[in-house]
Amino acid sequence: MRKYTVGIDFGTLSGRAVLVDVKNGEECGSVVMDYPHAVIDSVLPSSGEVLPVNWALEDPRDYIAVLEYLIPALCREADIVPEQIVGVGIDFTCCTVLPIKKDGTPLVCLPEFENNKHAYVKLWKHHASQKWADRMNEIAAERGETFPNYFGGKISSEWLFPKLLQTAHEAPEVIEAADYYIEAGDWLNFLLTGEQKRGYLFAAYKAEYLPDVGYPSDEYLAAVDPELPALAKRLLDAPVIGMGELVGRVTKEASARFGLAEGTAVAAGIPDAHVAAPAVGLTAPGDIYGIFGTSNCYFTMADEFRDVKGICGYVPDGVMPGYFGIEAGLCAVGDHFAWVVENLATPADHAEAEKLGIPVIQLLVRRAAEKRPGETGLIALDWWNGNRNILVDGDLTGLLIGMTLRTDTADILRALIEATAFATKVIIDRMGECGIKITSLIAAGGIARKDAFTMQVYSDVLGIPINVIASKQAPALGSAIYAAVAAGEYKNIFAASDAMKSPIYSSYTPNKENEKVYSALYREYLTLHDYFGRGGNNVMKRLLKIKQGEI
Amino acid sequence: MRKYTVGIDFGTLSGRAVLVDVKNGEECGSVVMDYPHAVIDSVLPSSGEVLPVNWALEDPRDYIAVLEYLIPALCREADIVPEQIVGVGIDFTCCTVLPIKKDGTPLVCLPEFENNKHAYVKLWKHHASQKWADRMNEIAAERGETFPNYFGGKISSEWLFPKLLQTAHEAPEVIEAADYYIEAGDWLNFLLTGEQKRGYLFAAYKAEYLPDVGYPSDEYLAAVDPELPALAKRLLDAPVIGMGELVGRVTKEASARFGLAEGTAVAAGIPDAHVAAPAVGLTAPGDIYGIFGTSNCYFTMADEFRDVKGICGYVPDGVMPGYFGIEAGLCAVGDHFAWVVENLATPADHAEAEKLGIPVIQLLVRRAAEKRPGETGLIALDWWNGNRNILVDGDLTGLLIGMTLRTDTADILRALIEATAFATKVIIDRMGECGIKITSLIAAGGIARKDAFTMQVYSDVLGIPINVIASKQAPALGSAIYAAVAAGEYKNIFAASDAMKSPIYSSYTPNKENEKVYSALYREYLTLHDYFGRGGNNVMKRLLKIKQGEI
Repeated sequence: MRKYTVGIDFGTLSGRAVLVDVKNGEECGSVVMDYPHAVIDSVLPSSGEVLPVNWALEDPRDYIAVLEYLIPALCREADIVPEQIVGVGIDFTCCTVLPIKKDGTPLVCLPEFENNKHAYVKLWKHHASQKWADRMNEIAAERGETFPNYFGGKISSEWLFPKLLQTAHEAPEVIEAADYYIEAGDWLNFLLTGEQKRGYLFAAYKAEYLPDVGYPSDEYLAAVDPELPALAKRLLDAPVIGMGELVGRVTKEASARFGLAEGTAVAAGIPDAHVAAPAVGLTAPGDIYGIFGTSNCYFTMADEFRDVKGICGYVPDGVMPGYFGIEAGLCAVGDHFAWVVENLATPADHAEAEKLGIPVIQLLVRRAAEKRPGETGLIALDWWNGNRNILVDGDLTGLLIGMTLRTDTADILRALIEATAFATKVIIDRMGECGIKITSLIAAGGIARKDAFTMQVYSDVLGIPINVIASKQAPALGSAIYAAVAAGEYKNIFAASDAMKSPIYSSYTPNKENEKVYSALYREYLTLHDYFGRGGNNVMKRLLKIKQGEI
Repeated sequence: MRKYTVGIDFGTLSGRAVLVDVKNGEECGSVVMDYPHAVIDSVLPSSGEVLPVNWALEDPRDYIAVLEYLIPALCREADIVPEQIVGVGIDFTCCTVLPIKKDGTPLVCLPEFENNKHAYVKLWKHHASQKWADRMNEIAAERGETFPNYFGGKISSEWLFPKLLQTAHEAPEVIEAADYYIEAGDWLNFLLTGEQKRGYLFAAYKAEYLPDVGYPSDEYLAAVDPELPALAKRLLDAPVIGMGELVGRVTKEASARFGLAEGTAVAAGIPDAHVAAPAVGLTAPGDIYGIFGTSNCYFTMADEFRDVKGICGYVPDGVMPGYFGIEAGLCAVGDHFAWVVENLATPADHAEAEKLGIPVIQLLVRRAAEKRPGETGLIALDWWNGNRNILVDGDLTGLLIGMTLRTDTADILRALIEATAFATKVIIDRMGECGIKITSLIAAGGIARKDAFTMQVYSDVLGIPINVIASKQAPALGSAIYAAVAAGEYKNIFAASDAMKSPIYSSYTPNKENEKVYSALYREYLTLHDYFGRGGNNVMKRLLKIKQGEI
């Protein structure tokens, strides 16, 4: 009987389980389910309350519904029995956090909190905690704290403490009633095993946890808010375990509920991006890998610590054991595509796409690709969802410049694609300034496989070759590889990656002609980036204040 | 038998004739016809040649076809005989110029020039002559010429001499074969009467002609280009006559062709915007009137000359005899609306508009109007078609700032509407700095009548009351009033305006709450306006160069 592990990837809009042969990494089945409520960013479903700007929630019951569906469906699809699954690994968007009770019940499931928006999951892209991030950064700077250096020098509004602080101050009743404040990925593992352990990479990248040190010091937390040390102690009280380590084994109760065999090994939860490293074969410095999705995440490794300001994380054992893991990312990539299709695609675009039998986005990308670099006359700052690196500022917003009466939807789409490539170059250049030389990009994710134009733009803009991996499910494959380690099938993650990683699907190399034009456009991008992002003109922040009625 | 005059308004996309009772100005009939070829800005119809960026042409045969259709159709509609029409006045977009032969034949009608793009009409918004405008400005500055002070201090790429110079240098064969280079409005009057006279306001505003002085001096023109004085002498060789003066009377041949009675008085041609002054009752300083259309034009008057830099014109007898006429304007207003509908309106928008039985633009305006000022979080620089005032730079392009993933089409439309209101405030503020105090706006044009939201935004942004006139055809009515003077029905234009001007249709006053928010947004607009428009960052010009393959 073949042996399998299952990797389960919880993304922004859906959860997906992939069945993987533990011998060779072959993907033998895949099941996906959308979250019934998707992202909750305009109206609270339970009460109809209109959410303030910059809010982004999810409903934790959606994750349960998805998990209940996935494993039985996967077994049916692949015609296997649950006992053939020796381990399961979950990866999750993060920082995606919720308040729960001791028994794992989310607060939003209690009648007294069902209409309390702070009882919902705060999704990674919830940006309404910016003022708490600002305060944490201020205090850290005042006190000369060194821990932020591991996390890009600046705490983001997306991370755990700002979200916890916002909740504690805007809805103290929620925090008072909560026993834990927990990443959704850790929470699901808790439900599976009955044991609460926190995945090291969640804790590190999103709650500034360091090996041998732990979370930021009580003195620092108290300076931010006198209540915070006690809150952190109470709400984060669980062991932190490393990648590939065992959380525990599936309980009888969870077996009945979720369809896994009792005793199945459950690996530590891992962020949905970091988790792909062993799947794509990122096992040494020099490469960077990018997951092209709703937003892009980038990962690379280095032998020693360097203070790279504005990069999200620079964490010991942060991607693979024995290396510093370096994380960076954009706030919107696929989200731009969706925004363009939803808001700017015309009836003519839809009609033509239907005639050709292709999705509208594919038609628009095709039209965008017909022009030569620079021909749109446009440049964008890609901050439709804020800036994660290197400015680390959720209050920045998008910019488009160069429109004429002939500018069309495809032009705008192209400008957005180019802008995210420029934003990536900003990150890689910043790494380069700090001595971390990047020579190639390994790409994964839907856009990387499907959109050759976008990948060529990235190769031209970055001036490096790109290999797109064949697996359509790099995060889930990565989770499955870690599950194989947790289940004891391999002695470590390097050995597991060697055996189970994905083959290459397609490759891109820079076009010298295009590189020249893009380097001129990149200079313009940088000037605008610095002017609007570094205080030359804080108009974006003031517009946000005006929008919120504060001016 | 009632007596009438006819005003014929040649706009950017169509020509319209209005039949007006000479006694009281009552509009007794109206006929419109679109130009068959509309604006030619991508492909030359005769050859399929792709036009370079910033080109905008029209086909002069379209104007003839329209003129042949209008008068007979108008007589049929109103059930009158041509002999009841005692005078006709033509107003036209300008500077909209073409090369013609001595007998009035446009060069593009000759077989040897049918595929020569320079033989077509260069429409007012043809901006590809920018480098010649730059050269004329440079030489004027070097020589300390004073004539530009009457025309805003800077020669625009839209005006006659830059267009003539571009034609002479890029297609010398066209200029060599041409006997005249003439505004389309003057050209039609030439066809009607067999007499070639140039309308004073065409000559003044678009070719820097001044009373008692004439066109710019030969010395200056020679410094720009040694050939230019001879070209100007040859190609502009015709008397210049004032508003309300008689060009001549309809010839027998023209009567047969166009359906007017032989001997009908033909008034001097007038720019399609200036012409509305007597129709809207702008007969003294203090008011400004605006025509809200494809682009907005503004007119006001002053008792004495003041050097208002960046305003298109400050011309003796420029709006009404005895006053300095002051002209300013935007490069795109209705064009923005059309751009949004064509490029950004979604299938859902179209479906909803159809359900409601309203045009899509009306639906989008409605949705834009639902938000409070500032709620979109957006600011635009409205330079989709360059900037006419006060920067006078056709190479500037559009900017949008503040986009998030929730920004929608209606938000973008609203930002564009607000931006044109801010641009109007820039103009009025510049006038105010020079001692020309504006206390109310008289508005005409399709948008002014149809779009209450836009008019309220303008009133709020400008902080002054707005009266929209009832006539749907202020330019055509103005042309008809001038025709009444040319036909000898009134002793002067003041008397004719008193008797024939339009009543008021609707009024707007500033909302104090909105004014406050808009004044904060206006400060942001000004900062961006100066940064991108005055050399803080010439990215727009560099993007244009990159677009044209010059970088």
